[in-house]
Amino acid sequence: MTPLHQLFATGTKAVNGWCAIPSPITAEIMARQGFDLMTIDLQHGLIDYQSALTMLQVMQPLPAPVMARVPWNEPGIIAKTLDAGFAGLICPMINTPDDAKRLMQATRYAPLGARSFGPTRANLVHGANYAQTANTAVSVFAMIETREALGNLDAILAVEGIDGVYVGPSDLALSMGYQPTLEPTATEVLDAIAEIATRAKAAGRCAGIHTGSPEMIRRMFAQGYDFASLLTDARMFASAIATQLAAVKQTSVETVKGY
Amino acid sequence: MTPLHQLFATGTKAVNGWCAIPSPITAEIMARQGFDLMTIDLQHGLIDYQSALTMLQVMQPLPAPVMARVPWNEPGIIAKTLDAGFAGLICPMINTPDDAKRLMQATRYAPLGARSFGPTRANLVHGANYAQTANTAVSVFAMIETREALGNLDAILAVEGIDGVYVGPSDLALSMGYQPTLEPTATEVLDAIAEIATRAKAAGRCAGIHTGSPEMIRRMFAQGYDFASLLTDARMFASAIATQLAAVKQTSVETVKGY
Amino acid sequence: MTPLHQLFATGTKAVNGWCAIPSPITAEIMARQGFDLMTIDLQHGLIDYQSALTMLQVMQPLPAPVMARVPWNEPGIIAKTLDAGFAGLICPMINTPDDAKRLMQATRYAPLGARSFGPTRANLVHGANYAQTANTAVSVFAMIETREALGNLDAILAVEGIDGVYVGPSDLALSMGYQPTLEPTATEVLDAIAEIATRAKAAGRCAGIHTGSPEMIRRMFAQGYDFASLLTDARMFASAIATQLAAVKQTSVETVKGY
Amino acid sequence: MTPLHQLFATGTKAVNGWCAIPSPITAEIMARQGFDLMTIDLQHGLIDYQSALTMLQVMQPLPAPVMARVPWNEPGIIAKTLDAGFAGLICPMINTPDDAKRLMQATRYAPLGARSFGPTRANLVHGANYAQTANTAVSVFAMIETREALGNLDAILAVEGIDGVYVGPSDLALSMGYQPTLEPTATEVLDAIAEIATRAKAAGRCAGIHTGSPEMIRRMFAQGYDFASLLTDARMFASAIATQLAAVKQTSVETVKGY
Amino acid sequence: MTPLHQLFATGTKAVNGWCAIPSPITAEIMARQGFDLMTIDLQHGLIDYQSALTMLQVMQPLPAPVMARVPWNEPGIIAKTLDAGFAGLICPMINTPDDAKRLMQATRYAPLGARSFGPTRANLVHGANYAQTANTAVSVFAMIETREALGNLDAILAVEGIDGVYVGPSDLALSMGYQPTLEPTATEVLDAIAEIATRAKAAGRCAGIHTGSPEMIRRMFAQGYDFASLLTDARMFASAIATQLAAVKQTSVETVKGY
Amino acid sequence: MTPLHQLFATGTKAVNGWCAIPSPITAEIMARQGFDLMTIDLQHGLIDYQSALTMLQVMQPLPAPVMARVPWNEPGIIAKTLDAGFAGLICPMINTPDDAKRLMQATRYAPLGARSFGPTRANLVHGANYAQTANTAVSVFAMIETREALGNLDAILAVEGIDGVYVGPSDLALSMGYQPTLEPTATEVLDAIAEIATRAKAAGRCAGIHTGSPEMIRRMFAQGYDFASLLTDARMFASAIATQLAAVKQTSVETVKGY
Ligand SMILES: [Mg+2]
Ligand SMILES: [Mg+2]
Ligand SMILES: [Mg+2]
Ligand SMILES: [Mg+2]
Ligand SMILES: [Mg+2]
Ligand SMILES: [Mg+2]
Repeated sequence: MTPLHQLFATGTKAVNGWCAIPSPITAEIMARQGFDLMTIDLQHGLIDYQSALTMLQVMQPLPAPVMARVPWNEPGIIAKTLDAGFAGLICPMINTPDDAKRLMQATRYAPLGARSFGPTRANLVHGANYAQTANTAVSVFAMIETREALGNLDAILAVEGIDGVYVGPSDLALSMGYQPTLEPTATEVLDAIAEIATRAKAAGRCAGIHTGSPEMIRRMFAQGYDFASLLTDARMFASAIATQLAAVKQTSVETVKGY
Repeated sequence: MTPLHQLFATGTKAVNGWCAIPSPITAEIMARQGFDLMTIDLQHGLIDYQSALTMLQVMQPLPAPVMARVPWNEPGIIAKTLDAGFAGLICPMINTPDDAKRLMQATRYAPLGARSFGPTRANLVHGANYAQTANTAVSVFAMIETREALGNLDAILAVEGIDGVYVGPSDLALSMGYQPTLEPTATEVLDAIAEIATRAKAAGRCAGIHTGSPEMIRRMFAQGYDFASLLTDARMFASAIATQLAAVKQTSVETVKGY
Repeated sequence: MTPLHQLFATGTKAVNGWCAIPSPITAEIMARQGFDLMTIDLQHGLIDYQSALTMLQVMQPLPAPVMARVPWNEPGIIAKTLDAGFAGLICPMINTPDDAKRLMQATRYAPLGARSFGPTRANLVHGANYAQTANTAVSVFAMIETREALGNLDAILAVEGIDGVYVGPSDLALSMGYQPTLEPTATEVLDAIAEIATRAKAAGRCAGIHTGSPEMIRRMFAQGYDFASLLTDARMFASAIATQLAAVKQTSVETVKGY
Repeated sequence: MTPLHQLFATGTKAVNGWCAIPSPITAEIMARQGFDLMTIDLQHGLIDYQSALTMLQVMQPLPAPVMARVPWNEPGIIAKTLDAGFAGLICPMINTPDDAKRLMQATRYAPLGARSFGPTRANLVHGANYAQTANTAVSVFAMIETREALGNLDAILAVEGIDGVYVGPSDLALSMGYQPTLEPTATEVLDAIAEIATRAKAAGRCAGIHTGSPEMIRRMFAQGYDFASLLTDARMFASAIATQLAAVKQTSVETVKGY
Repeated sequence: MTPLHQLFATGTKAVNGWCAIPSPITAEIMARQGFDLMTIDLQHGLIDYQSALTMLQVMQPLPAPVMARVPWNEPGIIAKTLDAGFAGLICPMINTPDDAKRLMQATRYAPLGARSFGPTRANLVHGANYAQTANTAVSVFAMIETREALGNLDAILAVEGIDGVYVGPSDLALSMGYQPTLEPTATEVLDAIAEIATRAKAAGRCAGIHTGSPEMIRRMFAQGYDFASLLTDARMFASAIATQLAAVKQTSVETVKGY
Repeated sequence: MTPLHQLFATGTKAVNGWCAIPSPITAEIMARQGFDLMTIDLQHGLIDYQSALTMLQVMQPLPAPVMARVPWNEPGIIAKTLDAGFAGLICPMINTPDDAKRLMQATRYAPLGARSFGPTRANLVHGANYAQTANTAVSVFAMIETREALGNLDAILAVEGIDGVYVGPSDLALSMGYQPTLEPTATEVLDAIAEIATRAKAAGRCAGIHTGSPEMIRRMFAQGYDFASLLTDARMFASAIATQLAAVKQTSVETVKGY
């Protein structure tokens, strides 16, 4: 079990701060507000490897573990991200057991997987015995975010080396024929979300989810999710500015723009 | 009269977005929320020339004019900033008429001043006749933020080429013996703030001020200020994150950290 | 039909500025010279995602739409590029209908394709209804640049969600057994280029091409191409410097170095 | 034969400086210490394309040729790296002849391979006839670093366009069931390392290897290796600082942290 | 008394790591080797404000306090540096009491000095009451490095708000007519160095010094210096690489190049 | 005599490439076109110290010496620039002998001047004896660009340690009451330009000038100028793009925008 898995096993519910802005300054401000976990998003976030590395350096000494979402299930970027020293990795679009196995191959050292060895910064921050500890210390989450993935859920959960699942409500809704949104309302989508947590926990895995509001986070925790992410830094920033500006001009707040 | 001066002459009250985060992404998000003016802060902001240049490039094509606050009344950085093509410049700590004259010398072309010619990007964005238009098109604001400056206010306002004043409430309060804050409450400080606007307008100059809240902006507009800045992007960002996180955890909002 | 498609449908011929230099300054200078379209080249250009993002931010508010050429038909970088908010995307080496289908999958939201939802900056600049508009508002061009692609042209053109083709003359010549050049002279290559436009237009698709000179652009427009790119910023820059320096030294201009 | 191949054919043994730190300053310091070759590591190094490009620009005019190790056998990043103008390329995890063929396809122009043409910076630094010279002037090394690759060694060596092999001792040891280390001691691993050089030379190919110490480099040269890399810049830097600090505090030197 | 002052009052001798390389990666490696203090050099280091800010962010959460050496006694850069949140500041070339008073003015809030208020990041990391604590929590060191400064030493030490002195042996030697070196051997220079510590301590101030070797650090501690810096990261890096390369080639180590 | 001075003493006329774009890529393209000298402009160029450092690293190994123009006669930035290892320095607005003496103080080591010692990169590239060679190896040019400077020309030329003058025609024209232009036509300005070269050469100093065209460079060489700069990279780039685009559209070339 990874440290995150152990943490969740005690019943702790973790609020995850989500960084989409490529800036060590906004990353630091985020990381000092009290989140339980932090994630740097290299997929939909406006962030590539080199920016993410610096942001990680800034956040890592602070208490909350820092994870990365990689842009795709591609071994090159997955390896670079892990070597940087992230505590965990979220991989989008794991739709089949084969997807999950390839993710495992890219993230776990032999004999379990085939991750290439060279943990340049990970060694520096996680200790010289990282070769021995990495396979159990780094959390790997498969994103469940399509109807196809739902159909394959138990088989995906059965892949050794995958610590848990992470739900993308927008893509899940879109894949099921609804408008993409971080706060789905369609019963079919809501049922799927509830079921994913149930089955993940039943399989002894962790479960996390992206959300669109503080209220949704609390609902997700009640459904069994171990951790939940709140919007993005960019969207909360835009909302805050729009709200303050509306207060000056005494107009109503405009709909927040941006993902 | 500069375009800003002309704008204010019609009675328009401008809300100024204040950028302290060195990021073209946060700059763009700010600039798309509807501020009337934007300012990039090279003094207390975490921003130097090269970062400010890129941020300016991103914001300039959008409707709101973009100004810079320079770190100090030093000709090297003032000239570089103006050559980048800013629509206006705010200079801290103009405490004496001599300070104001040196500011004017650094910001105005001969025969009025002694600004060195080489408007590399300014020419590109403001047109090939920038040499002829710059002295009247670029706004220059002297910060009035010490007791000494108050004593010299009329003499500072009389310096040709200075378009107006900008009040720093924190430094003004500190200089007068009070705690520094963007929302001063001491009567002596409040009276000084009111008087600065009155005397600036009487001298035919513009007046701007930094504030700590939407409510204070409206009070300042009522006192005659032409434009007012709202906190900083960094502080509003930190507040917003803290507020959302408190909503998840159903705790009260912590005091916002950061200037 | 995308906006570009609609534009071309009126008979407009668009000159495309091509950015290979990783700099928001050169990007801005390019974008202010009057091109009808702009493209940032992440394939052969010296530009990666993070640099391209900033360049896009600088160019997007200006009138010409900005496209990206991605380095490869790989879902990770394609999704990041689209989420940044580009108006169109050019993908190299689409040689088979299967290549084209995978490109479509990566660029179109369900139900047409499988693009993952999270348009962080695209939402900011294209509006909150981007989820509904993206599939028809973003142009996707498949590069036709091998003999194999020529053989599969009609099948590639038939893939729904591919708006048009973009010809790479250097690769096409190389693939057909000739020296790579932006201004091919071999009849076989010239015939292929002419045929691509004809068949693309017959299929109701747009057609663009890279060129090596202003004269070639006019020839390509006459052959039916909707838009054409002129060399690269880097090559035009090198040529210009060499020409000016030769004028000083009164020597003949050296052959321009660089792609 | 590439220039490197020709060099090695004379019996020259080359010491390869290995850059994992993303900085043009450390790159320049490295490159001025007298290495015979330099490599920028985009796989386990903390370096992506844009950083590597600038580092290459700084090092290339100096005497030692500069190679890149790419993060993975993926055509997009391979092409970008070559277009930047590197003198050679090392690709990790070439385990099968098919891996080697795909590497060759991505690195060699037609008719041998299918590398896309557009050598933006390569043309600038290697001359206008790069289209004719690249296939024989750029060295391509396949990493042999798994038990599977050992089994396929002769078939990999037989792929035309692959100039040689590069051994990763850590991954090789890990794949064979031992702890990963740059200085393996298990006989089975040492025998494999010796055999790779022998078979590569027998096939008329070059052979290089990563090492953990100056002494190991000399042993590898004695076994027939043409070039060998010494640790990483990051690890030598950390060791040097720790050693100096221990000398101040008159403590024994701590075990060096970091890959 | 600042925290550093209090620390030194207990007799603690601090080894100071000196960063001249503009890289968050080398900064982090340095900071994790066990120094008691860290300093980022914006004067002779290859580092400007924006780079220093990121390096500070990376190092600050680690145990050793981080100071900055500013490029000059200029209020603009001094204020920006302090607002970034450094624990201390070293200012070069304080040769007269007037220099020291201007340094104090720029670094201390009213009523003691005239530092402008706006501690954007300092507030974030040092707490919301930074306005009250900064004058006693931030250490300010005046560099004593010329014959003129020696003559004015007691007067400089008497300026309130200056916490101590920092000796630059190279400049001191050069100013006294000797070759500049971090390890002076001229008796006159050595005597001056000894005297500076004695008089600083007599005045109740701290004393630090730059050195050229671990041995010199121990001598300086014995003479009463509270903290001492060891060469630079750049010079130790170059030495380490040269030493390792010489070990490979079994040649003697070349003289280390670089300051 | 500096190397540049010695070069000019033989009658060599040097064409100086002028970099205003903050990019190592454009810098490298410029530096490979055959200029005799290169200058990075930190004053009116869009370039600060950190960008200039990287550009210098890229250009320095190439044949042409690289100089910097600093933003102002301020010791902090002058010292940083010299420590980076530039071969020469151009300082704007040297209007009085006192300005020239302060420039000399900041650029020359004791006993001549008071430059602070710490040539971090200069040592690396110019050799370990830089302390001994710098005062005679680094060229320092005072800009003569105001009517006041003309009046003080002989006294400025008499300051030991100033190697020569550099004329800024735009500022000179502006200061004399004419429109600023790199190609002045007013007789009074032209006479002043001619006289500066004559008096500089009579005093045994070098003379350089900025120009607006290849033709003007040849005229300036005929008047005795040792070196001359051609426009800026930015302006030549903009002109080239505009010219090519006009050729496509068969319109006349627009007036080039930008300094
Ligand atoms: Mg998703
Ligand atoms: Mg203030
Ligand atoms: Mg192509
Ligand atoms: Mg390996
Ligand atoms: Mg010194
Ligand atoms: Mg000038």
